[in-house]
This record gives sequence, C-alpha cells and structure tokens, in this order.
Amino acid sequence: MADDPGPLTYLASTRARAESSLLELMRFPTVSTDGAHGEDIRNAAEWLVAHLQHLGFESAAILETEGYPAVTATWHKVPGRPVLLVYGHYDVQPADNEKEWILPPFAPVVEDGFIWGRGASDDKGQFMALLNGVSAYIQTGTPLPVNVTVLIEGEEEINSVHLSDLLESEAERLSCDAVVAADSLMLDRNHPVILISVRGHAFVELTVTGPQTDLHSGTFGGSVDNPINVLARMLAALQDGTTRKVLIPGFYDDVIELDQAERDRINSSPITDELGIALTGAPELAGESGYTLAERVGSRPTLDIVGITGGYTGAGKKSVLPSTAHAKISMRLVPQQSVEDVMEKLRRFLLALAPSTVSVALTEQAGFGSPPAAMDPASPWIGAASLAYEVSHGETPLLLHGGGSEPMVGLFQGRFGVPVVMPGFGLPDDGNHAPNERMDVELFHKGAEWMVAYLETLPQFLG
Amino acid sequence: MADDPGPLTYLASTRARAESSLLELMRFPTVSTDGAHGEDIRNAAEWLVAHLQHLGFESAAILETEGYPAVTATWHKVPGRPVLLVYGHYDVQPADNEKEWILPPFAPVVEDGFIWGRGASDDKGQFMALLNGVSAYIQTGTPLPVNVTVLIEGEEEINSVHLSDLLESEAERLSCDAVVAADSLMLDRNHPVILISVRGHAFVELTVTGPQTDLHSGTFGGSVDNPINVLARMLAALQDGTTRKVLIPGFYDDVIELDQAERDRINSSPITDELGIALTGAPELAGESGYTLAERVGSRPTLDIVGITGGYTGAGKKSVLPSTAHAKISMRLVPQQSVEDVMEKLRRFLLALAPSTVSVALTEQAGFGSPPAAMDPASPWIGAASLAYEVSHGETPLLLHGGGSEPMVGLFQGRFGVPVVMPGFGLPDDGNHAPNERMDVELFHKGAEWMVAYLETLPQFLG
Repeated sequence: MADDPGPLTYLASTRARAESSLLELMRFPTVSTDGAHGEDIRNAAEWLVAHLQHLGFESAAILETEGYPAVTATWHKVPGRPVLLVYGHYDVQPADNEKEWILPPFAPVVEDGFIWGRGASDDKGQFMALLNGVSAYIQTGTPLPVNVTVLIEGEEEINSVHLSDLLESEAERLSCDAVVAADSLMLDRNHPVILISVRGHAFVELTVTGPQTDLHSGTFGGSVDNPINVLARMLAALQDGTTRKVLIPGFYDDVIELDQAERDRINSSPITDELGIALTGAPELAGESGYTLAERVGSRPTLDIVGITGGYTGAGKKSVLPSTAHAKISMRLVPQQSVEDVMEKLRRFLLALAPSTVSVALTEQAGFGSPPAAMDPASPWIGAASLAYEVSHGETPLLLHGGGSEPMVGLFQGRFGVPVVMPGFGLPDDGNHAPNERMDVELFHKGAEWMVAYLETLPQFLG
Repeated sequence: MADDPGPLTYLASTRARAESSLLELMRFPTVSTDGAHGEDIRNAAEWLVAHLQHLGFESAAILETEGYPAVTATWHKVPGRPVLLVYGHYDVQPADNEKEWILPPFAPVVEDGFIWGRGASDDKGQFMALLNGVSAYIQTGTPLPVNVTVLIEGEEEINSVHLSDLLESEAERLSCDAVVAADSLMLDRNHPVILISVRGHAFVELTVTGPQTDLHSGTFGGSVDNPINVLARMLAALQDGTTRKVLIPGFYDDVIELDQAERDRINSSPITDELGIALTGAPELAGESGYTLAERVGSRPTLDIVGITGGYTGAGKKSVLPSTAHAKISMRLVPQQSVEDVMEKLRRFLLALAPSTVSVALTEQAGFGSPPAAMDPASPWIGAASLAYEVSHGETPLLLHGGGSEPMVGLFQGRFGVPVVMPGFGLPDDGNHAPNERMDVELFHKGAEWMVAYLETLPQFLG
C-alpha cells in the first residue's frame, strides 16, 4: 500500500471524472421553489445515492421527508472518534429571466475555466468538492481521522423546511460532533472566507386589493385608491430614504451591536467600497448609515423588496387601474433578532399603514423563517478549517459575518449543540440566484483539496 | 317606395344579422398595443371595407398610415348640407390575465343578454351600432339630412398616434362639420351620458437600475440600494397618502377650476358614492380631497401607476436583489393642462428624487400624449344628440365630464374646428380594458336606434 497514491495525487488524477460527475448532477433541474420539479429532484436524489456509493461511501440512502428527499451516506471506520457531518444541498434556485442566460441553465458546460449552469456554485459544485476530498481518502485507503456522515438536502432554497423534522426522526443516524458546510463565497481568489455567523431570514408576501376587478384608469382614475399607488406608499414607509434604516417600530430592539474590537477586525478586511462597486456594478454603494460596508453585509439587518408586480407589465401601455398589487418582502436578521418577533412587528406596522380604502393580506409560507446564528471562532473545528486553507490555498482565511441565511446552522446547533464550519469555494460574481451561474474550475478542485487538508489538520486541533 | 319599411323597422328586422356581423368583427384579435397583431389588424380592416360596402356605403377604402390602417366610406347624397363624420376604432386592448377570462376573448358569443368578448363595448359594438343606424337609412332609401363620412381607425388604444397625419394628408376626404363618436359609457341603463369633455393622458415608463446584474439578497443586501425599494420611495413621493393630491411641483398650475354652477350641476347627477362602491367593489372610495366623486371623475387630474414589476414575481421566494425595477405612470389631465408641460414637471421631479446610488430612465413612447379637450354643450350638434336620446331611450342624457381620454377629440377640433359629439352605449361594468368584456345586446341595438333618432333630430337644430 505504501506506493499507492495519496489523496492529493488521487484528486489530481481524477479531475476530469470529478467535473463530468458534477455536470451530470447539474443536468437535473432541481428547482425546489416552484413545485414543478418533484420528479427531477427525486431523480437527482437517486443519482446521488448511486454516486455516493461510487465515491466509496457506505449506507448511501434516500431519507424521505414530507417534502423533497435528502440523501445520506457514511464512512464510519474509526469507532470512538468524533463524527464530522458533511452537509450540502442539491436543490437550486429557479432559472427565470431566460433571456439573460447566455448558456442554458441545465445543460452545463466547462468553458473558459468555469463550469457554467444553475447550481454550479450554489451548491452542487461546492458540496461535490467536499465529497471528492473525503472520497480521495477512501479510494486511496488513507485512514480518516474522524468518522464522516454525509447529508445532502433537497430543500435548502426553500429554507430547509423539513430539516428540523429530519434531524429529529433520524437523530441517531445524523448525530455528529461537528458539521462542515461549503455553501458560501470567498471574497476573491486570494481571500478565502470562513463564516462565523449567518443572518436570519424573514419573508412575507404582501397583497393589496382595491377594486374587485381591474378598472379602466380613465373612467375610474380618481374614484378609488389604486392598489399600486397604495403599495408603493406602504413599501416606502418601511425604509428611510436617507439613512436606509428600517422604519418598522422596534426592528432594531434585539440587534446585538458588534464591539469595537470586532468592528476593527472586520474593517481591516479587504471588504472595501471599491470592491463593493466592482462586484455589483452599482453607481454607488448604499446602506444603513453609521456602518461600513464590511459591517453592513453580515452584522446589520436589512429589508429588501425582492419582488413586486401589479397592473399591466407587458410592452406598451394599457389603461388599467388594477384590482391588486403584490410585493415580496425579505428581511435579513442578525443575532438576537427573532423571526417571529420581527414578523409580528412588520405585520402590525403594515396593517397600521394600510388605508381603509384597500384590503391587505400578508402571506407567510409555513416554515419559511430562518433564525440568525453565530459560531464560536475559537472552536478547534474552525481552527483546523483555517489552517487547512493555508495548506490548500496558501492563504489565511478571513473570519467574517455572512450576509446570507442558512437555516441548517441554527438547526444543527439547536439539535446537536455542535459547531458548524463554513468554508466557501465560490466567488462573489458566480451568479448565485442570478442568471449565468458558474463556478471556477480551479476553485472547484481546490475545494476538494481543502477537504483533504481539513482531514489532515483536524487531529492537531482535536487532539 | 311609400310602403317600404322605415329605418327603425329595418333595424328591428335585421337584429340577428347585426349581431352576427359584430361577432365576425370581434373574432379578429386587433390588439394594437403589443405589435404582434399586424396581420390580424390588416385582415380586420379588409373585412370592414367589405362590410361598409355591404351596409350600403360608397367609396369604402383602407386609408394607410405609418402604423395600422384606418377605414373610410361615405354616403354623400345631399350636396350643400353639412358633413357628419362617424368615428370609431376597431383596435382593442390586450386580453392578458388569461386565467380571469371565463369565455375566450376572441371567440365571442351572445349569452345571457350580453355579447361577450374583447372589443364588445370598446369600441367594436359601439361604432357598429352607429353604422347600423346610418345603414338603416341607406337600405330603406330614407333620405339623410346630412352627408355622412365614416372613419374607423386602428390605433385608438395606442393614442391615435397617426390620426393627426391622416387628418392632414386626407384633409379633403375627411373634412367635416361635426364628428359623432360612440366610445364611452352610460351611467347605468337609465342614465345615458353625453360627454362634454375628455381628460388628457400623459404616460411614461420609469426604470430604476441599481446593480448591473441581479444579486443574492443575502450576500449583497445592505451593500447597495435595491431598485425596488428606491422605486417604491420615488413613486410614493408622487401622491400624498392623505389628500391624494399629486405632489409633482406645479402639477395643478394650469387646472381650470369648475365654477360653482357647474359643480352644482355635476353634483346633482346620480354619480353617488354608493354607485361608485357598487361599480368598483372597492372597500371605500378615495380621491383628491375637497372634491366629490362626480367632480373627481372627469374634472380633476389624476396620477395612477398602471403597471409595476421588479425582482422575482413567480410563486414562492427567491432571494434576489434585482438589477432593475419598472413602473408605468399614467396621468389624466384636464383643461388647460398640457401634456408636454406636465411631463416635463414629472421628469424634473423624478430625476430630483432619484438617489445617486441608482440610474433612472424615463421612456416616453412617441406620440403617446393626448391633450384634454372640452366641448361646447350649447352646440346644436349636441342639442340634437340630447333630444335623440329622449326619442331612442326615453331618457334625457346627462352632460358629463369624461374620465377617459380620446386624442381624436382634440385632433378633430384642432384640424377642422368642429364639434365632437360623444354619446355612449356601454355600461360601466362592461369590462373595458379588463377581463370578460361584454356589451348588453339591447343597448347595442339601442345605439343604432339612437343614430336613427339623431339623424331625425338634426334638421331641427341645424336648420
């Protein structure tokens, strides 16, 4: 066995296979948000079971939920040693805005150094990288320092609605000592990031109804309130146009302010305004006054209208005074804000804002809240992850507060009381949740190398 | 000839044929607003030429424009007598919101006393009624007291963009002494209306662009302004939420206030709040403070957002901070507001409202303004029209200020200096510009009888 290749050599020699497996998985349009892809998701789960077996894992199986299935597998060969759970999600965001996709979202290709297609970075490419790293140990017969459990869920993009139930019903199978999840971004190619918190997420749909049917805007304009006009006023009241503070009474009550040391640490990171402009292409940055960009992104809560529609939205003009108008309101929360508390404050505020000339409906989808969660940066599991980046990427990672939301963090913390380690192999311009999603091919392979390094560094930290 | 039937007898005996001709015309999806129906519109124009010939008119022909064609015909048999131009439009509004149409929009049927389908009331049913009235004279050999010219245009729903050119290039053929146009509504079955003014119409599309592509609302929320949040604030600034006054500086500068006598006259009409609630189904009426419903509808200007879109508008949630957001802004104007002046004031206001964190584009479609126009209620042409209603409907019509816009009024007034007479045979719940458009069958036939009565009453007024 001494002449057998090590895990890194194995990874280097199986790159083509790793890429083609990722492309295979990306061909399943596993869109979990719109309900039309149940069969695609099921097919992808079955493909994953076979793939996990092929990678060398044992006990690969589908775990049913009341929604879309998760997939699990194990490699438990060191009894008495801790269990590391490798988490990922195989569901993806919708690929709407068809016209903006230069390449088709579900016919992925490798081109110009990128893997192109929906899910490349979020999250198929990232969790496949972790699995490839573990598989390199298994396939080369290299002993692992921990036991590994795999959990790939199919509902992350719909807020992991059944993950809580699954951790409950499969507690024995999924119990672990730490979780590693790669579902986030590097700051740029030279600045890897480990997240030490995630924002919470509260989401609600607001419908304003005025007249019972669409009316002619000439005949009836001036007679009744136009629900779009009313909606615009209600939404405008949610955020101050100058300070960008959220104006919902009590919104900031439970926000933990960062201490000065943490602010200094964050502000010494390369998250500069120039970087923000370069990444977004916005004419100017904007956000809550009194906070730097680096502070705003992960440590301050936000309110964004992520969708709005009403009246005639086709080409040209139509003289319509519509019956209804809709908005999707998304709030990102930070410790110790609670989803329920903030939603209740928003609900009360919106109902108070609504004039009696319209009716207002607020629709929450069951289980759609995600609490904010913070990790202890002093955890040995995070220390090892940090050192692993120096080995694999030659860079010390930044420990940053993440802007996105991952219900799984709070759920694993809550169920098993374990640390969640969040490296990231994506880039900010990967187009997650946007058209033309992609993942850098090199960073995909580097992700697997990071996993190999993590398994190497862990023993020093865990003892 | 003495035993030949009169025009009314003729109408009574040709009702079935009149209905089936209207249904034939309604089968052409003559949607002028979205550019996809050029061939349907052309086919309808050709059908109309044949139909006008069939009705007995002479010189029926297509009049080409740089856009969609108009159709003309004449019955000029009393040299030296005035020329009355019968105006109508055969183009229709889009039939979007497919799911709300109970019957298909372009497969019209007669059912439950209504003709159902797009264009039934706006305007195919109404102008066909006028033509049937004239045709009843022609077909029965009854001498007409005036010469009649017909002009049916194909671009009314796109603001009659080429009508001005047509009145110029075909000035000889289309010159007239008065225009009669039936493209409006009765208050209810017992209250016919003749409009004595129409509101103007200004329309613009507003696009707010923030980041250059859609971004993840978690990763980037709080970094840049969200164009939907900004758009909501800009739109909210256009109208006071309490007084419903339009807040564009100078917006009301040129509005002619009605004198007390005219206010009293209008307020004695049966345009009550109860009627407004019944027609709209809104929880409560709303409009500019200080004015009654009857005053607001036709005599006060308005600002309505008639379409809005941005971000993710499908089912469920998508965590997107969008690149752009759009709104369609429609303003109804009253004498002596000018479209150009008000548009310039809006433009200046919106550009001043836009923060430097976004870019803003205002898109006007060429020729889309329509000036407000008032008619002299003392005109003999209107006096005859009023008396005709007593004959045909047994009711004295209300002379009201119309809420809608008809560029043709200002264009005929401007080109030929002639009165425009505006009876209406539709009902407020006909669903013009909304799903399930319809026209009452009886009122369709009554419209033809009104035209017969109008031709009878005209000599008394014109001398």
